[in-house]
Amino acid sequence: MPEIITGKNLSEGIGFGSVIISEQAEINISDEKIESSQIKNEIKSFKDSIQKAHIQLRKLRDNVGEHLDEDSAAIFDAHIMMLDDPGFNKLIVEHIENLQKAEFAIKLAGEEYVSQFETLSSDYMRARALDIKDVSQRLIANIQGIELTDFQNTDEPVIVVAEELTPSASAQLDTKYVNGIITAKGGSTSHAAIIARSLNIPLVSEIDNILEKVTPGDNLIVDGFSGDVILQPTEVEMAAYSEKEKMKKERQNELKEWIGQETKTIDGIKINLFANIKGPEDVNDFLNNDAEGVGLYRTEFLYMNRMNLPSEEEQFQAYKTVLEAAKDKPVIIRTLDIGGDKELSYLNLPKESNPFLGERSIRFLLKNEELFRTQLRALVRASQHGNLKVMFPMITTLDEFNRAKALLIEEKERFEAEIKEKLEEISTGIMVETPSAAIISDQLAKYADFFSIGSNDLIQYTMAADRLNSQVSDLYQPYHPSVLNLINKVIDSGQKNNKWVGICGEMACDEKSIALLIGFGIDELSVTSKKVLQTRDYVSKIKKTDMEHLAEAALQVDSGEDVVYLIEEYLNLT
Amino acid sequence: MPEIITGKNLSEGIGFGSVIISEQAEINISDEKIESSQIKNEIKSFKDSIQKAHIQLRKLRDNVGEHLDEDSAAIFDAHIMMLDDPGFNKLIVEHIENLQKAEFAIKLAGEEYVSQFETLSSDYMRARALDIKDVSQRLIANIQGIELTDFQNTDEPVIVVAEELTPSASAQLDTKYVNGIITAKGGSTSHAAIIARSLNIPLVSEIDNILEKVTPGDNLIVDGFSGDVILQPTEVEMAAYSEKEKMKKERQNELKEWIGQETKTIDGIKINLFANIKGPEDVNDFLNNDAEGVGLYRTEFLYMNRMNLPSEEEQFQAYKTVLEAAKDKPVIIRTLDIGGDKELSYLNLPKESNPFLGERSIRFLLKNEELFRTQLRALVRASQHGNLKVMFPMITTLDEFNRAKALLIEEKERFEAEIKEKLEEISTGIMVETPSAAIISDQLAKYADFFSIGSNDLIQYTMAADRLNSQVSDLYQPYHPSVLNLINKVIDSGQKNNKWVGICGEMACDEKSIALLIGFGIDELSVTSKKVLQTRDYVSKIKKTDMEHLAEAALQVDSGEDVVYLIEEYLNLT
Repeated sequence: MPEIITGKNLSEGIGFGSVIISEQAEINISDEKIESSQIKNEIKSFKDSIQKAHIQLRKLRDNVGEHLDEDSAAIFDAHIMMLDDPGFNKLIVEHIENLQKAEFAIKLAGEEYVSQFETLSSDYMRARALDIKDVSQRLIANIQGIELTDFQNTDEPVIVVAEELTPSASAQLDTKYVNGIITAKGGSTSHAAIIARSLNIPLVSEIDNILEKVTPGDNLIVDGFSGDVILQPTEVEMAAYSEKEKMKKERQNELKEWIGQETKTIDGIKINLFANIKGPEDVNDFLNNDAEGVGLYRTEFLYMNRMNLPSEEEQFQAYKTVLEAAKDKPVIIRTLDIGGDKELSYLNLPKESNPFLGERSIRFLLKNEELFRTQLRALVRASQHGNLKVMFPMITTLDEFNRAKALLIEEKERFEAEIKEKLEEISTGIMVETPSAAIISDQLAKYADFFSIGSNDLIQYTMAADRLNSQVSDLYQPYHPSVLNLINKVIDSGQKNNKWVGICGEMACDEKSIALLIGFGIDELSVTSKKVLQTRDYVSKIKKTDMEHLAEAALQVDSGEDVVYLIEEYLNLT
Repeated sequence: MPEIITGKNLSEGIGFGSVIISEQAEINISDEKIESSQIKNEIKSFKDSIQKAHIQLRKLRDNVGEHLDEDSAAIFDAHIMMLDDPGFNKLIVEHIENLQKAEFAIKLAGEEYVSQFETLSSDYMRARALDIKDVSQRLIANIQGIELTDFQNTDEPVIVVAEELTPSASAQLDTKYVNGIITAKGGSTSHAAIIARSLNIPLVSEIDNILEKVTPGDNLIVDGFSGDVILQPTEVEMAAYSEKEKMKKERQNELKEWIGQETKTIDGIKINLFANIKGPEDVNDFLNNDAEGVGLYRTEFLYMNRMNLPSEEEQFQAYKTVLEAAKDKPVIIRTLDIGGDKELSYLNLPKESNPFLGERSIRFLLKNEELFRTQLRALVRASQHGNLKVMFPMITTLDEFNRAKALLIEEKERFEAEIKEKLEEISTGIMVETPSAAIISDQLAKYADFFSIGSNDLIQYTMAADRLNSQVSDLYQPYHPSVLNLINKVIDSGQKNNKWVGICGEMACDEKSIALLIGFGIDELSVTSKKVLQTRDYVSKIKKTDMEHLAEAALQVDSGEDVVYLIEEYLNLT
């Protein structure tokens, strides 16, 4: 009989393979003191480990950057920076000078840093603590000549099993051979979970002592839908699994037939199906999946993982590349959206008690006009190379939008004077993500050219529940009638004023909410490139008039659960 | 010619008096080393300073507790606890053992602690840093035999001038002789500003080098309306000031005539005029000012400034005292509202990245059922002693209200079984302070007996602007049409379902917003006791039907400024 253990499903999908253990090896380190004559040697050995780590991390960074996204690659930037941290280096050298062996000195320094960070409360600091552990382990392994797990070398289907995946192990998951992950620890917002979801690798977590229950080489099935892990599966189970796998592949091929088609409901309503991108590196994905435009270009990635601000020219080149690749398709570029959970360390901004309710996004830009104007100039220049639309995020009052737009127009006129040529008007829209903007959307629609609903933030503010805080995740309810009322209000305001309304949060990617959104009358959905064809297919099976009834009913019920129940009834999923 | 300097007005009013400097004396401390034979003496000298500080702080605490509120008195509790902090004590003794003089050892230890806290980012930590500075200064002054400023000894009208008021100086402001305050540093949320406002002492801040511009004994006028400080005022200016003072006193006497009267608009609409209280200590104020009920009893003060949870009996006694004192007047007790900016250190709750969007208030209570049930039992028992209504704060979904109410009913039935007697129904309401609750207020009104709008939080969530973060204070707009739309929606929902709607945030105390609220149809205002008679007088001059037109217009305009302009036009203030 196969044994089934159930954990928490953090990434959907079903995977089969043989176990590979990603251990944070309990490396044995002696605390035996050295002679003072050895100090010099030990310091050299430490410096060598740093050099070696530099090379390893840069290689991993490039490799991951190619296969995954910049976000994941950035983990390695953080680690590289830590190698050069003078405080950390000094502490280690001091320990060696106090006659500790290099490995033990690194261990001590790492622990000192970690304990300092772990008492601090922010997720950011806890993440840094994990980074330090990761780097210390790498340095020690280098000195001892131990190879750390490298999934990139695998050449058969595997299930990665670990107590907890370090950030650097997580960032290496992108290989066609990792079919599943099981960990004892790690929440739904852990780096491992985020990457697993973005790579469609099933992940089951919160299984205590998982390392004691499996042996490298064991075959097992990970069911990321139910959270089940099936040890030593039977023939029947294997067959069922293979069948599922086959169907999945067939489905992928079927979807390709949607390339080049329009996105339309059964009753012929056209939906603009756009994609979210982070920069030029996502253009191929965007084109290959036949997205009809860029619904959200997140420019903050241009500013992140570096030591200083990107120049106007650098920004111009990035925007131009995307606009030219998109040909005549609309490209909605969102101005810099930092603050909240996204920091730019080189700006040394003051810490805030509640960064999500702080000086983030357009608030920051309006107070840092030169920085804002640099981006606007780059946008104005790029507008000559494609179908650019500019979107301002985090708008709370009409005044903010008017001020931001006035700056854009000023920069446009200045550039026109320079080149002695009149450019076309740049369409400017509002990202609706505060309750305030949604409530006064009727007033805003008189000034903005379009709206794009940022559902993630809109939900968090409406429900007053930090979307990254697992303590209140039960209150982060996309289907709550209060959220739906605001979304409906925004779409209504757009229609009344002849402005189109899109949505670019995670709700745009979910089939249940797409049904509702079409019912409310949404004009545009912006999804991740990989979901474009699937969404086109799904929309083609929806009848808008049916969804209008659903949407109306959803606004009246008492709870988010009731809404989900209603949707399932309408979609005949129950 | 008198010189006029203009700063930032942080507390309204006009004050006249002679300058008294509250210096954080630059005490000269020698870093000369001691002999090891002196160590014992220096340690004794340090211990004596601690003993002396204990006595001083307890005296101040009692004095302030009598005159001011528990919040301010609590500053001294924090300081007393710090005197007993083993880490701080150990550090000082270590410095002495390293041959430092006691004063210098205290200075060093204080600086080490402060630098540790100042690098941390939260307001809470910064406040602790200020506390440590304050305590260190007290200990050093004790050793050196220096008397710290004590405004309680003043017997003529003074204007307190300081670089920055320490918490302990701020807490001593409550004397009839402090007529004004001028500081170089300190924001609108500093302790000094909060206390100044609650005591109606004009405060002007952000005047650089103020200490160089005045000499103790100088006469000056502080205008907390305009932010002007008039040095060496002329006879004419003095006369104008005296006239204003006289009118203010006359006004106070006039208002007393409103005691015992109803609160009614010109067109005869009755408004329930309640008061906010923090506990039994506020009952006299509440009675003397003829409030018609308690609109908000903030029970968190029972839980704060202590080392453990209050028992059921302790809570019962506090609630009973208030209910009995209020006779048949309604008393709305809000269940524990911690989290956000209010911590209970003894619960050791995990730190959150955005505590205002975290597990606060009813969210915390529902996850800590035993603690919640203890409070509910105390409330049930107290309900026999007066006209109790229970209010649940931070409700976001109907489910939360239903679960909280079910627990109350369970505890009530359990108590009834014990005493073999049926109690009267306890009316249960919702504090509406999340956008979600406001938006689904029509659904909620079918279940709740009443609503009380918590405008402070409702504004902060609607505008996505932390109400304590000065970086975004321009976005904390009580008059923004989005906020007003939500308030209007809540009042409408109440009326449609025959449930009364009150308001207990700061908007209830502001004349401009009272006009609007009456226009929307508010049933109850809950203000600070000291504003009851003034509000009754103000309401008597308002015609509701006029305000209805104003309210309707305010919902349609583009900005908060436009709303204020509209109100001023209606009230003929321009």
